Amino acid sequence: MSAQDDPGEFARATAVARRGESNVWDAEIHDGWDIQGNANGGYLLAIAARAMGDAVDRPPVTITCQYLRPGRPGPVEIEVDVVRAGRRFATVRSTMSGVDGPIITLLGTFGEAAQGGPALDTFIEPIDVPPFEACVPRPSSAELPGMIRNLDARLHPDDVGYHVGSPSGVPEMRGWFGFADGAPIDVYGVLLAADAFAPPIFNTSLPVGWVPTVELTVHVRGEPAPGHLCGRFRSILVQDGLLDEEGVLVDSTGRIVAQSRQLALLPRDP
Amino acid sequence: MSAQDDPGEFARATAVARRGESNVWDAEIHDGWDIQGNANGGYLLAIAARAMGDAVDRPPVTITCQYLRPGRPGPVEIEVDVVRAGRRFATVRSTMSGVDGPIITLLGTFGEAAQGGPALDTFIEPIDVPPFEACVPRPSSAELPGMIRNLDARLHPDDVGYHVGSPSGVPEMRGWFGFADGAPIDVYGVLLAADAFAPPIFNTSLPVGWVPTVELTVHVRGEPAPGHLCGRFRSILVQDGLLDEEGVLVDSTGRIVAQSRQLALLPRDP
Repeated sequence: MSAQDDPGEFARATAVARRGESNVWDAEIHDGWDIQGNANGGYLLAIAARAMGDAVDRPPVTITCQYLRPGRPGPVEIEVDVVRAGRRFATVRSTMSGVDGPIITLLGTFGEAAQGGPALDTFIEPIDVPPFEACVPRPSSAELPGMIRNLDARLHPDDVGYHVGSPSGVPEMRGWFGFADGAPIDVYGVLLAADAFAPPIFNTSLPVGWVPTVELTVHVRGEPAPGHLCGRFRSILVQDGLLDEEGVLVDSTGRIVAQSRQLALLPRDP
Repeated sequence: MSAQDDPGEFARATAVARRGESNVWDAEIHDGWDIQGNANGGYLLAIAARAMGDAVDRPPVTITCQYLRPGRPGPVEIEVDVVRAGRRFATVRSTMSGVDGPIITLLGTFGEAAQGGPALDTFIEPIDVPPFEACVPRPSSAELPGMIRNLDARLHPDDVGYHVGSPSGVPEMRGWFGFADGAPIDVYGVLLAADAFAPPIFNTSLPVGWVPTVELTVHVRGEPAPGHLCGRFRSILVQDGLLDEEGVLVDSTGRIVAQSRQLALLPRDP
């Protein structure tokens, strides 16, 4: 395989293969896409979404993933159930299971967006992020989460206070997302990016720790142009042990390619 | 039944009954909860959520509903699949089907929120709505959507221009939600309220028409106190034939009881 044909580390780590003519796809949770041992939620979502997309030969438009137990490196199977395949959209459910039982369960609508038509872009505050070069990479340390090594990600200088125990006080994370090997970001990479930023509440008085996602929904609003993605993630409400995270991702042309939202538990030890 | 014991019209119209010991619940789409013939999406969601909640004896925390075909009055069955019932949360899938096939398919996490703990309330602009008495009811007309007759709902005076063909230009709907019979609003009523306001894009240059929901996710953030709900719904991005709608619902004490988001198609004739 020439370097040009190399699909990249993320594509390899999210590869799926249908088991014969069955409704089961085999995959493997790779080492190196975890946060202190637990596979990243966007990474798991991307694997299952590939199986679902493969089943209906269409990319995701909106996909919801609920998290049942942590994903650990090793083989998994994804059982895919096409609820309805219509002309424009297909509605698909799936559950990814490992040796200990179900890890995630998903519901998605797959299809091609209708290119063009009327466009309105409102209530989106411009994502105020300095150029990539002026943003801050993760500090090198023994505790560097596994996944970070596979990313070329940087944060807004105003949002990295939590690195040194001085959170900004504002539950917001802004910055850039790309792959360390320079691989292009497809819609499945967008799904990863929707859960790849540090939790915004790290910049509050809440403790820094594992923030277990209960539910994550991503609306894929476009195929990204080449280059890094720029993202902004905010938490609106922490209440009764649950918090939300709302994100927007734009490509290098400034076009919104995804809106994400998740519900998660308060930070805990991994 | 005394008037005091009357559960109200909404409870009757969303009642479900388990078929023996099976995983199927029977229900009926009632007339009068439609928009020009198509059952409201929040109403359908509420029926299926009751079956799912009944199956695991817990209320919804987050629930996603995808819409496959319009719901018409008549009997439906809801097939419920408990993916995992843990100590704190249960993860449940379901599909509601009518005589023509599947109508909606859902994925939800059910459980009790952990009362108390740290609370942060950020990036929520105060919902600027005048008192109920100063807001505007739907104009009476022959075209009054069926569901509106069952609601005691009013809109912000600044958001009703579309009633008379003068949209405000801002894709926003704010106002009050209650039941016409004064029945209390439980968490299933909150699910209805998450899809019961007129689409915000009615206040733009887009045509007024049926806005078919593709996907709706509601995070239930609390049990409402007695009284009306106050809501604000906005569309952030119309692009490639799809639009989003993001909502927040607060109860009469000002507490956020739900955050909602949906992806929908552009308005069309019903």
